[in-house]
Amino acid sequence: MGAEQHDAVEVIIAKRERGELSDSQIDWVIDAYTHGAVADEQMSSLAMAILLNGMNRREIARWTGAMIASGERMDFSSLSRPTADKHSTGGVGDKITLPLAPLVAACGVAVPQLSGRGLGHTGGTLDKLESIPGWRAALSNDEMFAQLESVGAVICAAGDGLAPADKKLYALRDVTGTVEAIPLIASSIMSKKIAEGTGALVLDVKVGTGAFMKDLDKARELAEVMVALGKDAGVHTVALLTDMSTPLGLTAGNAIEVAESVDVLAGGGPADVLELTLALAREMLAGAGRDDVDPADRLADGSAMDAWKAMIRAQGGDPDATLPTARESHVVTAPTSGTLTRLDAMAVGLAAWRLGAGRARKEDPVQAGAGVVWHARPGDTVTEGAPLFTLLTDEPERFDRALASLEGGYDIGDAASYSASPLVIDRIS
Amino acid sequence: MGAEQHDAVEVIIAKRERGELSDSQIDWVIDAYTHGAVADEQMSSLAMAILLNGMNRREIARWTGAMIASGERMDFSSLSRPTADKHSTGGVGDKITLPLAPLVAACGVAVPQLSGRGLGHTGGTLDKLESIPGWRAALSNDEMFAQLESVGAVICAAGDGLAPADKKLYALRDVTGTVEAIPLIASSIMSKKIAEGTGALVLDVKVGTGAFMKDLDKARELAEVMVALGKDAGVHTVALLTDMSTPLGLTAGNAIEVAESVDVLAGGGPADVLELTLALAREMLAGAGRDDVDPADRLADGSAMDAWKAMIRAQGGDPDATLPTARESHVVTAPTSGTLTRLDAMAVGLAAWRLGAGRARKEDPVQAGAGVVWHARPGDTVTEGAPLFTLLTDEPERFDRALASLEGGYDIGDAASYSASPLVIDRIS
Repeated sequence: MGAEQHDAVEVIIAKRERGELSDSQIDWVIDAYTHGAVADEQMSSLAMAILLNGMNRREIARWTGAMIASGERMDFSSLSRPTADKHSTGGVGDKITLPLAPLVAACGVAVPQLSGRGLGHTGGTLDKLESIPGWRAALSNDEMFAQLESVGAVICAAGDGLAPADKKLYALRDVTGTVEAIPLIASSIMSKKIAEGTGALVLDVKVGTGAFMKDLDKARELAEVMVALGKDAGVHTVALLTDMSTPLGLTAGNAIEVAESVDVLAGGGPADVLELTLALAREMLAGAGRDDVDPADRLADGSAMDAWKAMIRAQGGDPDATLPTARESHVVTAPTSGTLTRLDAMAVGLAAWRLGAGRARKEDPVQAGAGVVWHARPGDTVTEGAPLFTLLTDEPERFDRALASLEGGYDIGDAASYSASPLVIDRIS
Repeated sequence: MGAEQHDAVEVIIAKRERGELSDSQIDWVIDAYTHGAVADEQMSSLAMAILLNGMNRREIARWTGAMIASGERMDFSSLSRPTADKHSTGGVGDKITLPLAPLVAACGVAVPQLSGRGLGHTGGTLDKLESIPGWRAALSNDEMFAQLESVGAVICAAGDGLAPADKKLYALRDVTGTVEAIPLIASSIMSKKIAEGTGALVLDVKVGTGAFMKDLDKARELAEVMVALGKDAGVHTVALLTDMSTPLGLTAGNAIEVAESVDVLAGGGPADVLELTLALAREMLAGAGRDDVDPADRLADGSAMDAWKAMIRAQGGDPDATLPTARESHVVTAPTSGTLTRLDAMAVGLAAWRLGAGRARKEDPVQAGAGVVWHARPGDTVTEGAPLFTLLTDEPERFDRALASLEGGYDIGDAASYSASPLVIDRIS
C-alpha cells in the first residue's frame, strides 16, 4: 500500500472527535486491519464512531478503494460481450436475480453475479439456488470466466480473494451493532461490486418495513452514495429505489422462490416480480449499451428460459429435477371477507425465517422446502375461510412462532380503503 | 447476578440509538463481559456508543454497581478508627498522596489507598514509591488490614479481586480510543474506590492543560457525577476542582517527587504542594468526622513524618536510604530575564515522560531517577543565563525529544503581565 505509519487510537480519536480521516489514515487502517495489526476491538470502536459521526464522500470513496485494494480485482474486458450486474440491498421474496441474470444474458450482455447467503429475515440468492439438486455455488475464477463466455450468466459465491478487508469487517459489524452505517454499507457493497469487474451496475435499493432501510430519505442517501462510488470507479451505475413494505411475488423461501422464478421465465409469474425483473433488465442493458434489445421479447421467445437451464446445468444443477418440498404444511385462512389492504413484508419475512428458510447464524443450515406462500396480494379480494397463507417447514414445532410473526401483519378492509403504491419509487443516476 | 438473558448486539444498538440501558441490560453486559460471553469487540463498540451518546445518572450508578459486584468488596468497619481516602484524576508533579496519607494517619484517620501505576504524561503513585529501596506495592488484604491498624496508612496496588470488570474494561478503553467518556471515567474510579471500602472520599479533579480534563465544565460534570455515585453508595464524598495548567511543586519524576514529598513532611516543601496537601487532608478529616484535628499541627510536631517512615518500613522500604539519581543531567538556562508568567503542565509532563519517568505501554519499566526539575514557578523572577530546568535521565539520547516538549512551554515577561490563579478552583459536595 505504501501507506504512512499511523496508530489505531489516533485514527479512532480523529473520527470520534468528528474529524475527517485523511487518505493516508484510511489506507493504513484498512491495510493494518486486514493484516491483523489493527485489532477487532479497535476496528469496532472505529466503526461505531463512523456510524455515529459519519464520513464524507471523499472518505467513503477512499475507504471503498482501500477495501478493493486489499484483494484481487477481476477483469472481464476480454470477454466478447459487455457485462452488467445487479445488487439488491435485500428484501422479502426478492428472487429477482434468478430470472434476471439469464434474461439479461439472453439479451447479449454477460452477468457476473457474485452473490451471498442470507442472514436474518431476508433470504439469500445462493440459498435459493442450492435447493436445486446438484447445483453448486463455488466456482474458480477460470470457471466463472468460461461460463460467462459460454452461457453469459453466472451466479456464484464470492471467492476469498475479493475485498478480504470487507469480508472481515462485515463479520465484525454483524456482531458489534455497527451494520446500519450508510458509509460502511455503501463501501461494503461497492467494494465487492467494483472488484468483481462488472462494466455496468444496477442497484435495487429497497425501502420499507421489510427492507434494511425503513426510511425513504436514508435509502435515497445510500443510493446516491453508491451511485457516486460506482461512477468514480468507472462503472456505469444507476439505482432504483423500490418498495419493500410488501413482499415480492407470492412466495418467500428457497425452493418455492425458485419455482416462482421459473414461472416468470416461462412467461407467467406474479405481476410485480415480472415488472421489477423487466425494469432492472432494461437498466442493465442500457448500462451495457444494449438498450436496443427488449427483454420482454426474450421472455416471450423462450431464450431466457434456455439461458436459465444452461446456467443451472453449467453449475452442476438439474433444471428439470423436482424441487424439494417441506414435510409439513399449515394453512391460515382469512378471518373475514374483504380486500387485502396491507401485507407486511417484515411479518412475512420473519415467518419464513422462523419456519427454517433463513438462518440466525452464518453457520446455520437452511431448509430447502421451508417458507411462506401467500394466496392474495394487496388489492386482491379474499373470502372468509379461504386459504390466506400456507406455511411450510420440515419441523412442525416451528409453526407457532411463525404464526405469531404473521399476527398483525396484514389487514382486510373494504376496497375503497386500498390504494396501490408504485413498485419503483425513484431512479438515481 | 440473577440478571436476565440479553444479547450484546441488542444492548449496543439500544445505546447507539440514544436509548437508556435498563438495569437488567447493564447487569447482564458487565457480568457477561467479565466472564467472556461478551467479546472485547462488542464492549468496545458499546464503549464508543456510550462515549458519544452518554449515559444518565441512573445508568452510571447501575454500571458502577455492576462493576463493584463483579468482584470482592472490602470492609474496614471493624478497624478501631474511621477511614478516608483520596483520588486524583492525575496531574503533572502530583505527588500529593505521598505526604497526604501519612499526614491524615497521624491525625487518627486510617487511609486505605489503593493506587495505580502511571501511563502517559502523568506519573503514578506506585512508580514514585517504588524508587524507595526495598519498598513493595503488593500487599495481601490481611497485610493491608494489619498495616491500617498498626500504622494507619497504606498505599498499595489494587488486587485482582477488586472490580475485575473495571480492570478488563480499562485496558480495553486504553487501546480503543474510548478513555475520554465521563460516564466510563466516573464509574471506573468510583467502582474501585467504593469496592475498596473507604468511609470517606475526597476527589481531586484536575483541570487544565496537564490534566485529563482540559475544560472546567467537563471537570465539574465529572466531579458532580462522582460525588453523586459516592453518596449513593454511602461513602461521604466531596470533590475539589484544582488547577493543573501549571505543574505541582518543582519536580516531575519518581525519586525526585519522593524527595519533595519528604520536604513537605519535614515542614518545608513548595508552597503549592503544602497548600493542596493541607486542603485535601482537611476534607478527608471532615469526611471521617475528625475536623477537630488541624493537620498543620501534625506536620509541625513531626508525627506525620513518623507515620511516613512507619508506612514505608511496613512495606519493606528504607525511608532513610539514599534515593536513586539519574546518571545524566542537562540544564536549560533562561533565555532572558523577567518574570516567569507561564509554565505549561503538559509540556513539563511530556518532557518528564520522554526522559523515562513514565511509560508508553503498561509493561514498560520506568526510570527511578528520571524527570524534570524546574527552578522557578510562575510569578518568580528569572535571570538570563541562570538554570530554568534540569533534565534528568539515564539515557542521554532522550534529551533532544524532552527539550522539544519544553519548547513553547513557558513564557518570560514582565511582572505586570502575570496574575496568579487559585490552586483550588471549586468544591463540589
